[in-house]
Amino acid sequence: MRRALPPLRALLGAARPPRLPVPRGTCGPLAERSGHSALSVLPSFGFLFDIDGVLVRGKTPIPAARTAFQKLVNSQGQFLVPVVFVTNAGNCLRQKKADQLSHLLGVPISQDQVMMSHSPLRMFKRYHEKCVLVSGQGPLLDIAQDLGFCQPITIDTLREKRPLLDAVDHDRRPNVLSPSAVELPKIEAVVLFGEPVRWETSLQLIIDVLLTSGYPGNPYEQESYPHIPVLACNMDLMWVAEAQSPRFGHGTFMVCLENIYKKITGKDLKYEALMGKPSRLTYQYAEHLIRAQALQRSWEQPIQTLYAVGDNVMTDVYGANLYNRYLQEGSQSHLQAGAAAARCRSVLVCTGVYSPQPEVPPDTGDSITGTVFHGHRDFRFDPALVEPDHVVPDVDAAVDLVFQLENFAPR
Amino acid sequence: MRRALPPLRALLGAARPPRLPVPRGTCGPLAERSGHSALSVLPSFGFLFDIDGVLVRGKTPIPAARTAFQKLVNSQGQFLVPVVFVTNAGNCLRQKKADQLSHLLGVPISQDQVMMSHSPLRMFKRYHEKCVLVSGQGPLLDIAQDLGFCQPITIDTLREKRPLLDAVDHDRRPNVLSPSAVELPKIEAVVLFGEPVRWETSLQLIIDVLLTSGYPGNPYEQESYPHIPVLACNMDLMWVAEAQSPRFGHGTFMVCLENIYKKITGKDLKYEALMGKPSRLTYQYAEHLIRAQALQRSWEQPIQTLYAVGDNVMTDVYGANLYNRYLQEGSQSHLQAGAAAARCRSVLVCTGVYSPQPEVPPDTGDSITGTVFHGHRDFRFDPALVEPDHVVPDVDAAVDLVFQLENFAPR
Repeated sequence: MRRALPPLRALLGAARPPRLPVPRGTCGPLAERSGHSALSVLPSFGFLFDIDGVLVRGKTPIPAARTAFQKLVNSQGQFLVPVVFVTNAGNCLRQKKADQLSHLLGVPISQDQVMMSHSPLRMFKRYHEKCVLVSGQGPLLDIAQDLGFCQPITIDTLREKRPLLDAVDHDRRPNVLSPSAVELPKIEAVVLFGEPVRWETSLQLIIDVLLTSGYPGNPYEQESYPHIPVLACNMDLMWVAEAQSPRFGHGTFMVCLENIYKKITGKDLKYEALMGKPSRLTYQYAEHLIRAQALQRSWEQPIQTLYAVGDNVMTDVYGANLYNRYLQEGSQSHLQAGAAAARCRSVLVCTGVYSPQPEVPPDTGDSITGTVFHGHRDFRFDPALVEPDHVVPDVDAAVDLVFQLENFAPR
Repeated sequence: MRRALPPLRALLGAARPPRLPVPRGTCGPLAERSGHSALSVLPSFGFLFDIDGVLVRGKTPIPAARTAFQKLVNSQGQFLVPVVFVTNAGNCLRQKKADQLSHLLGVPISQDQVMMSHSPLRMFKRYHEKCVLVSGQGPLLDIAQDLGFCQPITIDTLREKRPLLDAVDHDRRPNVLSPSAVELPKIEAVVLFGEPVRWETSLQLIIDVLLTSGYPGNPYEQESYPHIPVLACNMDLMWVAEAQSPRFGHGTFMVCLENIYKKITGKDLKYEALMGKPSRLTYQYAEHLIRAQALQRSWEQPIQTLYAVGDNVMTDVYGANLYNRYLQEGSQSHLQAGAAAARCRSVLVCTGVYSPQPEVPPDTGDSITGTVFHGHRDFRFDPALVEPDHVVPDVDAAVDLVFQLENFAPR
């Protein structure tokens, strides 16, 4: 349960917020109406809801969430519109998250409506049969197996099988200096699910795997570049917890890994895939889930518009706008990738990280392009992508706004 | 007990070693004789001995070490020449290291002859009365207090006093979300003794201290740059243990800290001081110890030449040559800094990291300047500084060579 962070300028209080808080229920400057003159009863749109800062704050439900969800279901608790929950959290199974949401919102949520940062790994079938090293916390093996991986190996298991490798902690060094060799299959990919504990252990073993082409314990090889594939979920540098300043997230762990790799080899660590908001992969997979719901319900009207409701400019708004730009390009490859929507609209709520009232007046000498970019190394900061299409007070107002924009009046 | 590493090219086996292995007992091309025509009985030189790779390998004594040390003491076990042991290790008190050396070499070694990576901190008296955050492993508080620090605070203590800050490990997050405020003095400096365990905890708390100007738990401040002073001991990126490839050292932890700081703030982490070989501070302090020994023994002849005997091109040779260059500059500030020797000579032994016989033929397309630099960010790589003045098989040959160069014949 976490919120990713706005850039430091917002935390430090001397910066401009994104433009134009918009009064409840009205549409922003970029809104495009779907062109229905009569009220619709079948949806041609779907919702992508962020969780923390939109539906809950920490463990506290946001009151508007229950009100909003009463409008989204019929009297049998069936959804009237395709809905997917898109979170960058990744340390539990989606069924557990679905159960939490059902309890929180008072409507039944299926695990197929829940998308976590690791969910797109389901699409990477070419790795499912291979031995992959998994890094993170929580029920990692269960998560990996649920996603389709047949041979995941954890950092802890690798550490047991190759006890000489993890030498930082003096108290955990092995007593036996020549442990017997234990057979291990070649590790063919590394999957970074989220920030682990004991970073020195994970960093050392991941570097060992990369510099030995999947045979940790062997001497480092000069021929190990390009290295075996690395797939990473959740790039959030920091997140907001109870402390007064933001806490390290998985993105911070990745900063360490990238820079150690660069320092030792002189070369760049490359990611085969980066998942989690604001990555395109995440929105592609979310659209896939939206489409699957519509198909299951036999809604024949095509889904034209995705509305991504979130509280974070740098993940929710940036990600939705980035995906919208991709959809606008409209090439043949979109259809192959399962993207068929015409647009993705960003709706920013004020119940989480984002606040329309900055605590101190904006520093006019400060511009968004001149501030520190807390996004991932591989995402170039584009100021045009942090402007939300709509700003509303809360998630209930977001639902009202979308129903109005879409002339949607479910029966 | 650790050896710092040669650059990756040597590890990867496809590189050139430094020039010119020299036959036992002869002097290398840059040797300068001290100009005595008669044999001397009082020393005008001193020894700086590296430990691992020169006197021991792991826990195994190198046979030449005992032979060499028999030549360095008289029949009462008193040294005939000033001798200092200079190691980048730092996780124990110097008395413990002196005891280990006495046992190993069969001659009594005093703690005043032992210099560890943190030893120069004794000279930083301006921080001794202040509250400083200390990071590392081993008996940190004992080490800090032995060096003169009156108010050290460990990462673990800070974590207990500010339980909301360390949030990476889900299982170690506090149950109480609003712990009562505990008074803490302002932290006025950060001292990095060596690599800690649970890097995420140390990295998070050090960043918190730097971004709050010494009041961790407060919100981050934009005015916290330049940050409070950071002093670091031992920059070794990696070291050779029992594993077939090198293991992370304190330098790797520092790579993480520097890059997280840069990512979050956009600015460079600055070090008030960097200690341990190859830093100049280390050699200045070693010379200070050499001079103190000569004074104590009432050897009135000035110490002109320091011989630094080590097995590692990138730390022992580079550091000695760097200090020699400093001595050659011969400005007034040298005398103020306690530097009075005329020169520092590097003597490379072949019992440790360095091997005169590369395992594969040198790759003629590869040059030392084109390879990856594993030294610290703040040390620019200078190829001229990796050429040893002398190369000898072992430490016994090093002593023989120096006695010959100095025309030294103790009675």
